[in-house]
Parts: sequence; structure tokens; C-alpha cells
Amino acid sequence: MPHKKPQNLEIDNLDIQILSILMKNATTPYTEIAKELIVSGGTIHVRMKKLEEMGVIRGASLEVNPQKLGYDITAFLGIFLEKGSQYNDAVKQLAAVPEIVEMHYTTGSYSIFAKIVCHDTNHLREVLNEQIQSVKGIQRTETFISLEESIRRQISLD
Amino acid sequence: MPHKKPQNLEIDNLDIQILSILMKNATTPYTEIAKELIVSGGTIHVRMKKLEEMGVIRGASLEVNPQKLGYDITAFLGIFLEKGSQYNDAVKQLAAVPEIVEMHYTTGSYSIFAKIVCHDTNHLREVLNEQIQSVKGIQRTETFISLEESIRRQISLD
Amino acid sequence: MPHKKPQNLEIDNLDIQILSILMKNATTPYTEIAKELIVSGGTIHVRMKKLEEMGVIRGASLEVNPQKLGYDITAFLGIFLEKGSQYNDAVKQLAAVPEIVEMHYTTGSYSIFAKIVCHDTNHLREVLNEQIQSVKGIQRTETFISLEESIRRQISLD
Amino acid sequence: MPHKKPQNLEIDNLDIQILSILMKNATTPYTEIAKELIVSGGTIHVRMKKLEEMGVIRGASLEVNPQKLGYDITAFLGIFLEKGSQYNDAVKQLAAVPEIVEMHYTTGSYSIFAKIVCHDTNHLREVLNEQIQSVKGIQRTETFISLEESIRRQISLD
Amino acid sequence: MPHKKPQNLEIDNLDIQILSILMKNATTPYTEIAKELIVSGGTIHVRMKKLEEMGVIRGASLEVNPQKLGYDITAFLGIFLEKGSQYNDAVKQLAAVPEIVEMHYTTGSYSIFAKIVCHDTNHLREVLNEQIQSVKGIQRTETFISLEESIRRQISLD
Amino acid sequence: MPHKKPQNLEIDNLDIQILSILMKNATTPYTEIAKELIVSGGTIHVRMKKLEEMGVIRGASLEVNPQKLGYDITAFLGIFLEKGSQYNDAVKQLAAVPEIVEMHYTTGSYSIFAKIVCHDTNHLREVLNEQIQSVKGIQRTETFISLEESIRRQISLD
Amino acid sequence: MPHKKPQNLEIDNLDIQILSILMKNATTPYTEIAKELIVSGGTIHVRMKKLEEMGVIRGASLEVNPQKLGYDITAFLGIFLEKGSQYNDAVKQLAAVPEIVEMHYTTGSYSIFAKIVCHDTNHLREVLNEQIQSVKGIQRTETFISLEESIRRQISLD
Amino acid sequence: MPHKKPQNLEIDNLDIQILSILMKNATTPYTEIAKELIVSGGTIHVRMKKLEEMGVIRGASLEVNPQKLGYDITAFLGIFLEKGSQYNDAVKQLAAVPEIVEMHYTTGSYSIFAKIVCHDTNHLREVLNEQIQSVKGIQRTETFISLEESIRRQISLD
Repeated sequence: MPHKKPQNLEIDNLDIQILSILMKNATTPYTEIAKELIVSGGTIHVRMKKLEEMGVIRGASLEVNPQKLGYDITAFLGIFLEKGSQYNDAVKQLAAVPEIVEMHYTTGSYSIFAKIVCHDTNHLREVLNEQIQSVKGIQRTETFISLEESIRRQISLD
Repeated sequence: MPHKKPQNLEIDNLDIQILSILMKNATTPYTEIAKELIVSGGTIHVRMKKLEEMGVIRGASLEVNPQKLGYDITAFLGIFLEKGSQYNDAVKQLAAVPEIVEMHYTTGSYSIFAKIVCHDTNHLREVLNEQIQSVKGIQRTETFISLEESIRRQISLD
Repeated sequence: MPHKKPQNLEIDNLDIQILSILMKNATTPYTEIAKELIVSGGTIHVRMKKLEEMGVIRGASLEVNPQKLGYDITAFLGIFLEKGSQYNDAVKQLAAVPEIVEMHYTTGSYSIFAKIVCHDTNHLREVLNEQIQSVKGIQRTETFISLEESIRRQISLD
Repeated sequence: MPHKKPQNLEIDNLDIQILSILMKNATTPYTEIAKELIVSGGTIHVRMKKLEEMGVIRGASLEVNPQKLGYDITAFLGIFLEKGSQYNDAVKQLAAVPEIVEMHYTTGSYSIFAKIVCHDTNHLREVLNEQIQSVKGIQRTETFISLEESIRRQISLD
Repeated sequence: MPHKKPQNLEIDNLDIQILSILMKNATTPYTEIAKELIVSGGTIHVRMKKLEEMGVIRGASLEVNPQKLGYDITAFLGIFLEKGSQYNDAVKQLAAVPEIVEMHYTTGSYSIFAKIVCHDTNHLREVLNEQIQSVKGIQRTETFISLEESIRRQISLD
Repeated sequence: MPHKKPQNLEIDNLDIQILSILMKNATTPYTEIAKELIVSGGTIHVRMKKLEEMGVIRGASLEVNPQKLGYDITAFLGIFLEKGSQYNDAVKQLAAVPEIVEMHYTTGSYSIFAKIVCHDTNHLREVLNEQIQSVKGIQRTETFISLEESIRRQISLD
Repeated sequence: MPHKKPQNLEIDNLDIQILSILMKNATTPYTEIAKELIVSGGTIHVRMKKLEEMGVIRGASLEVNPQKLGYDITAFLGIFLEKGSQYNDAVKQLAAVPEIVEMHYTTGSYSIFAKIVCHDTNHLREVLNEQIQSVKGIQRTETFISLEESIRRQISLD
Repeated sequence: MPHKKPQNLEIDNLDIQILSILMKNATTPYTEIAKELIVSGGTIHVRMKKLEEMGVIRGASLEVNPQKLGYDITAFLGIFLEKGSQYNDAVKQLAAVPEIVEMHYTTGSYSIFAKIVCHDTNHLREVLNEQIQSVKGIQRTETFISLEESIRRQISLD
């Protein structure tokens, strides 16, 4: 990636290396990271504390395979509002729909763009028809379904 | 969520409860989980092993805030191919573009739908113009930029 | 068709063979089916009864050629609602329009997708203008007309 | 339906009544139809023979519930060709894809419009990617999935 | 044009020949037509009278070149209504806008499709903004301007 | 129409009045026009000669009702070219299709916009599939059909 | 540019030459222009006075590089109104949004087309969400962002 | 404008005030600016030199009214390329078309977005058909015309 490196002065190469290792496996023990980067375990602790305080690290999460838990449908949802000014209210109501796992305010033609995860097409219909389209201010939605997820990874810091 | 629970017979309520706790914080110690669910620590180990072997658990990942690392732009990309039959080849080449963090084969009008993370609008232009649009088989792309991420969470198993 | 066969344990190969014959000609006598599949006529009766009780068989219908009865226009109709939440009410009213022969709730940009059969373009205009567009909650429709039906068949169970 | 009745001089009201009964249930015995319409059984035979010879009747078909046979996905497919002149060749190749149950040449923006029935989203991906998009002349497809079939019936002759 | 000839039994080849000549030049004297078709002048009179009574002939019109009269802009207008049911009212109001020279109810995405002739782009803006968009029921319009008229002719009866 | 009058200095009010009368009925005798406008018959002749020489008058045409001649379908056609540079060649070939009665080079998304008149939907399919889509350089067409012509008139000179 | 020269009789070649020089650099001294065009300095003054009085010259402006002043985002905005008749009111309110640097009433599908300049994507979101979408009459906006400005110049009078 | 002020440390409030005055009228004498801001004329010179060296100031330009010079048409042009990878070549060729006054690489569906200024619709057709659509790599263009420019100003630094 020949592009300019991030210019945040408070983050150095060691921080980036620690993050790189943990972004691949969040449960790598600090002692192992320290060994690999040839620094003391205390240094790893200090750096992690700094990165957490700076808000660089949001937390660690267990990645599950939704299909194995019976969630067969991943869908993307372009949402059109009756009026753009209803955005803030609509976001609040949509946050209460647990099937929505990601939501954005985007350029382009949609007012809101969301990613939802459902058990099957019946479940998707229920969520669209009974939960999302009944939100005040939502005029209509444009849905497209993922038939295959070919890439899913974090940004590469290498 | 009144919808039918997943019917995978090998996964019971205890499994779901363990997953729920770890999906909120992947670094919760097993002893703490065992205490909260009033089972033995060994039970947690046995269940986690089973869930990993079944492929329910994909791993644990450190969640970082891309903006704090100098990645200010999240964009969505609808990709049109010259011919639908070039899909498999295009996917292979796109996998080599590190800025692409998610990619799907979807219904609707796009051939491929991707999510990319870039430093700034110059970086986005470089990635689009020099890396993605030079992939053999890609005719054109339709980009929209996230101006605000209002929701980002895993599916709720509660 | 190399795809996985249906996994409904209550339906076996003999059921599928019986259905295949009747899906091609619903009036084939049971004795003829029994002879072809080298089973007793009683077996056919038992199986058909089971398939009807399971809801696999919906009934038998006479296929007519609409053009020979003066229905020259087959059209598809994408329907946009004023608000997605008006879907259930709109469906009820649309069910009273006899020219609609098929109707779906779909992903993509339409709220409702319908297939209609009309005598001629004047009749189509009447149905659109006087019957469908006067349904409460319908904002506008997007119509496209079939100029030729090149395939029409049931799913192949072979 | 206040619209003008079909003006085919060879088809009279009795023909329409016979068709109406059989379109509701294709296995109604002729004797029962004769009784209901207060004509002789021979008349029913004569009329049915005439309607078959005129091509008004295409045949009788067993209606099955695709979901009960493991076909969970009904999708609509707008197909764009590289060049409109490839239509005839593309139709021939598409006829060999058994999952396509209906296909039309339509006005509007699509070159070809098709209805397909698949087991699940994986099967749909396979059919789109390996069978349909590899047809010579097809540039791209636009798919939308039925989440609910709310109406399915024949034209009403009443 | 290998397509089937019109089947209106009341119109014969001589009628078509007379119409052909007059569609090219509406002021051709009947005596000249009679001479060319080797029939009597009276026959032409009789046929023209019949064609007028049947409504085949709507009248004769002087074709002027709008650009020579200071009308430099020909534009096409797709009109979207707030509700499809407002069509009849909107048509009545639009008929009072003299710049509209042709108007249709069409399939596709527009509710109404119109052709308008204006002096210049300022005049077009005035007509759109002050006359057409103030019609009750019209939500928005989609305009495209003719930059060149390459064909303009009547149907060919030859 | 409050808009500025045409500023062509060679055309005066009398010319406009003569044109107005003849645009309503092209066969009005000059003597009648002269009487109505209180000028001599010679003046009408002089003015008409001038207007013809200036190219203001293109000719007189007989307006026929296409439906009475068996032309039931009026359709509009947006044509997309493979490359914009093929425009001049495509226009030449399209001019040989007699069903095209009007053709424009327009702003907006279409390369070419045409109006065609056909006998019925079968004829329309033939014209689209065999004549228009086989023109070299045409990639695809977007068709919409007129279901009702609510206005058809010349510009108003009053 | 082989196209016809402007026909405004009051503007001659000398005027055009003066404008050409000043459009490249508005601060060129009149004496220098006079020398280059071999006329007296008084002539330049007279001509400039005439061009200003005729409204040909609107003024001289300092061109700054917005990026150097912290304005990193240039975006284009297609604005859809609830009703076309709200255009005049909406324009007045939008004029109060300082980030809008250009605004047009256009043909095509947008009601209003604007160009805006913002500091960053957060600022763009604020302007869209809090200032523009809260304008009475605006239904929704379609935004696209400039990733590179490759040409920016005045019309060439040469 | 409550948004954060530009954070370029080398530009202070005095710089901004000087720029503000000159952006309104590029020919304001430095002595007048010095008087208004209560600093010495030398300070203005020093600051202007710094702003020019920093690239904040690009130059001064005479703003002319294109309509008064016979340029009646301002149009916007969305350009689609055959392949995205042809962008760099296409830009070079388009730079040679003098009617293009602004050009961008944008997000959204267009590959290139341009603003052009023409004498009239005939000129626009010539530019589109003969100059722009003959550029290698350009597939098609989507044009919309400005019917009124309601705002045109520089960013406000106040």
C-alpha cells in the first residue's frame, strides 16, 4: 500500500505492530506479543493502555459464523425517508431493531444505508414489513441480499 | 425478537448464553463466565471447544477505531462487470486490494458489492482509479461514502 | 441439475416420480402411472393422499391460452407505496382486482410486484388508472409489457 | 369487470362456463359439469374437443407447492444483453436452465425477464453465476427475490 | 414491411393508395389522384367521404417549421404524479398549457409523458416552473431536450 | 402565453394570422382566408409564397387516425449505443425502418429517442428484435408504450 | 472552435481580445493591454466601461485554493422537492447556506442542482442533515463527491 | 457557520480578512484594504506574497457573463467510460475540448463529471457528438442543461 502512513504523532511503529498481531487474534497473550516484537511485557501493557485511552482500541469481540447459528440471510438496505429532516428520529427507532448490525448516513441516493442479518426470507419479510417500514418517516426501502460473502477482514496495518 | 429460534439441535441455551457474553467482550475469563451462568469452568471449556469444532466460532478480533489510525473514509462500492462470467476472476484480483474489508455477491443491480476503508478522498481516488478499475473484467463502479456510522454491532443472540 | 436434492424425509423417490408424471399431465389415470412405475394402483392412491395431506399438491388446474380467450396483453407491474407500512392494506384491496394473476412482496426497489392479464392496451389503461392507482396507499406504478412468452413451465423434478 | 367481453365468435357462453369450472379444478368429471350446467355429457365432450382443437386449452397441470419440495426461493431476473441482436441465441441457451420457469421478452429496460425457482440462496448463486451469467451474450442480470407470494390464480372468466 | 396488412374489411387497396398520395401532400387535387390511380374523380370523392365518415381521416394540417417561428426548443417531459389517481385532473389542467403539443399515458416509470415546444431555455424554465409544476397533483418532472430532430414523418402505408 | 413573441423581423402579424387559420385546416381556400382577415386574395398568395420560400411552411399533410388503419401501438424508444461515436451511422440505418415516425438526438441518458407506430405487440416485438436491435452500434433499447394519447396538436400561434 | 462566433453586434474583435487578456489575469494593467493590442490606453478604458455597462463584465474575483484554506470536500447535490411548485421558496432558503457556491434549475431528474464546498465529511454531513434537508419543501438529496478536479477554467474566447 | 475554522497554522485572521475583501473585488487597491483593516500597506504586501507562495491564492480572474458573449447554454455532463481504467487517457483528450470549463472525478455512478458552456443547442449537439463522444474510451454521456443559475459565489470566509 504505497499511500501515505497515518500522521497521528502519538502512534508509533511499535503500536501499529502490536495492533496488527491482536487484530489477527485478539486472544494472543501479551507475553507472546512481547517476545515476537523483542520488547518487555510491561511495554505491551503500557502501549495497550495508551491505545485504549486514546480510543484507538474499541474492544475485543468474538467473531461467530451467523449461518451456523441459523442466520442464513445477510441483506443490505437502502432507506428513503419521506423528508431528509426525519433522519435523527428514524435512526433512534431503527437502533431498536436488533437485526440491523450496521447503519450509515451516506452520500448517493439513499438517506440511510443498513446491513441486516436474518434467519431466512420469511424473517427478512417480517423485519422489513413489521419493524422497519413501520418506523415513522421511512417512505420505502430498497433491499439486496448477499448470496456469498467473499471477503471479510479488518483493515491491514502492515 | 419474536422470530423462531435457530433449530440447530447441537446448540443449546447454555451455548447461546456463553456466546452472548463473549460476543460482548471476547476477553472475559472463562471462570467469570462459569460463575455468571452457575456452571463449572470445565463446562465452559467443553462447550467452547465444541463450538469451535462446529465452526460456530470463527475467532476473536480486536476492534479498532479506523479514524484514530488515520482512516477517515469508509465507502461502499457497487461493481459492474463487463460480463457476469468474469466474477470468479475479478474476486481473486480484488482480494489483493487491502483497502477492501468486505465483499459480497448480491442480488439487485450490482455484480459485486464491497466496503472499503481509506485515509482520505485522495486515497479513495487512488484505490478506485489505480487498483480497482484496473482489475480485468470490471466495467465501472458506483461509489457512496459513509458520512456517519450510526450503528455497528453483532447480531443479538438474547 | 447437480444441486442437492430436497431433504424432506417424508418424500421419497417414488413420490417424486408420481409428481413428475402428473405435473406433465394432470389427467393421467392412476392405473397408467402405476404401470409405468411398476407399483400397484393402490400405492399411487396412498401416496397421492399423503402428498395432498402434506400440502405438497395444491390441486389440478386447466391451463388455457389467454390469447385465444381475447387476453392479448400480459404485463408486469412494480408498485411503489406512499409508505411501506401500507403494504397489508394495499394487498387486500389489490386482491379484488381480477386482472392481477400473481402478486409478490419482493426485495429490490418495488414494494409490490404483480403480473396482470388484460384484453388490450385500452383495458390495461383502465385497470391501471381506475382500479390499481385508486387503491389507497399506492403512489405510482412502473409497468412493462410482455411482447413474447418464450418459456412457461413448472419446476423440473427429474 | 366492466370491460368488453372477448369477441371470438367461435366461443360462446357455455364454453366459458365449462372452462370456468375446470380452471378451478381440472379433475372435475364431465358428468358433474354437465349436471351443473344442465346440458348432456356429450355436449361437454364436444365442446372440450372443440376448445382443445382451437388451442384454447393447453392441458391440465398438477399444481405443487414448491416450498414443500425444498424450493424456498422464487426470484425474478432482469437480463441485459451485450447486444439486443443476441436475443434469439440467448433464449435458446436459457431454455436449458431448468430453474427458469417463465421467461419473457419485455418492454422497459430489460432485454429478457425471467422467473426462477431455487432451493436456497446458495443454489440461486450457483444458477446465476454458473449457468445464467455464462450464457453467451448476457452482460449482466438484476435479481429480486420474492419474500411472499400474496396472489397466484388464473384469469377470472366470470 | 413484411408484417400483416391491416384487416379492416371496409378499407381496400384503393383507399390505401389514395391515403398514401394525400399523406405526402394534402393539397394534391382529386383530379390528379384520379389520373394517377386510373379511376374517375367521382370515385376519389366517394372514397374520401367514406374514409372521413369512418374516422380514418382526421383532417389536413399545415406543417410549419417551429424554429422559423422562433420556437428553438423541443423538449420531452416525464411527469410523476403525487398519486396515480390524480391522472384525470392533471390531464385537464395540462391541456390548458399551450406549449404542450403531445401528451400520453404510458407504461414504464412516468405517469404522463409530454412533448413541449418553447422559444428558448428561459421560456422552457417558465413553462416548467410556473405552468406545469404548479398543476395540482404533479410531484416532479424529468425533462430531456431534443438537440436534433433526425426523422419526422407519417406512417408509411406502402 | 405571456412569453416574448418571435422576433423574426420578416414575419408580421398578418403572416401569423394566415398560418393560424391554415394550421387548423390546411385546405381552407385562400379566398376564405382573405375574407376573414379583410385583405385581398392576392395578398394571401404573396404571403404564402414568402413563407414557403423562407422555409416557415414545410407542406400540408393529411392527418390519419393510425388505429383505424390497424396501427394499435404507439411506443417510445430510448436507444443506447455501444459508443456515442456510432450515432451518425446508426441514424442512417434507423431511417430505413418505416415504423419509426420521429427520431431525436436528446440530452439525458438516451443516445437516441424515437417514436414508433406498430400494428400490435407482436409487430412491435418484430420491429425491436429484428430491425432495430440488429442495427450496428445499438446496444440496447428501453421501450415504453402509449396507453392513451390525451393531447396532439400543433403549437398555438395565437 | 469552428462554431459560429457570437453575433452581438455591439461587441467587436478588440473587445474580445481585451476580455481574453483579462480573463487570464484580471490584474493586468490597462497600459500593458493597450501595448499588446497596439491601441491607446484610453481605448481600453472606453471599451471596458462599455463592457461593464453592457453587463458583459460582472467583476474581478480573487481565485483561492479552497483546500489550502481547509476546505477538502467539493460535492455536487441533486435536490428533489416534495412538489416542483416549492422551487422559488426553496431557492431563497438555500441561498442562506454559505457552503453552497453554485446552484442551478436544470433539466433531467433533479429539481435543483448545487455545488457545495465543505471542510471534511463531518462538515458535509452537518450541512446536508442540519441545513439543507431541513429546508421546507426538500424531500431528499443525492450527493456525489469530487475526488479530483481535473479541469477548471473560463470559456475560451480565442 | 458554527463549523470548526481551518486549522492551517500558517494562516491567521488577518490573512482571512484580506482574502475576504479581495474575493469580493479582486481589484481593491492594497491601500484601501490596509485602511479598512487598520494595518500598514506593507503588511498587506507581505501577507499577499505569503499567500501566493503558499498556493492559497491561484490568481485573479475577470468574471464575464457568458450569455452576453453569446454563450446561452450551460450544461452538466455525466460521462461513462467503457472501462474505468481509461480514465487518465480520456481526461487528457477532454482537456482539448475548449467548451469544457470544469471537470471532476466523482463518487456515484458517473466516471467523469463535467460542466460545459455552449452558444446554443446546435453547438451543444456538435460538442457532444463530434468532440466528446469521439474521445476513445467514452461509452456514453448523460447531459442535463441549466435553465437558470440561481447562485454563483465563492466560499464565504467570514
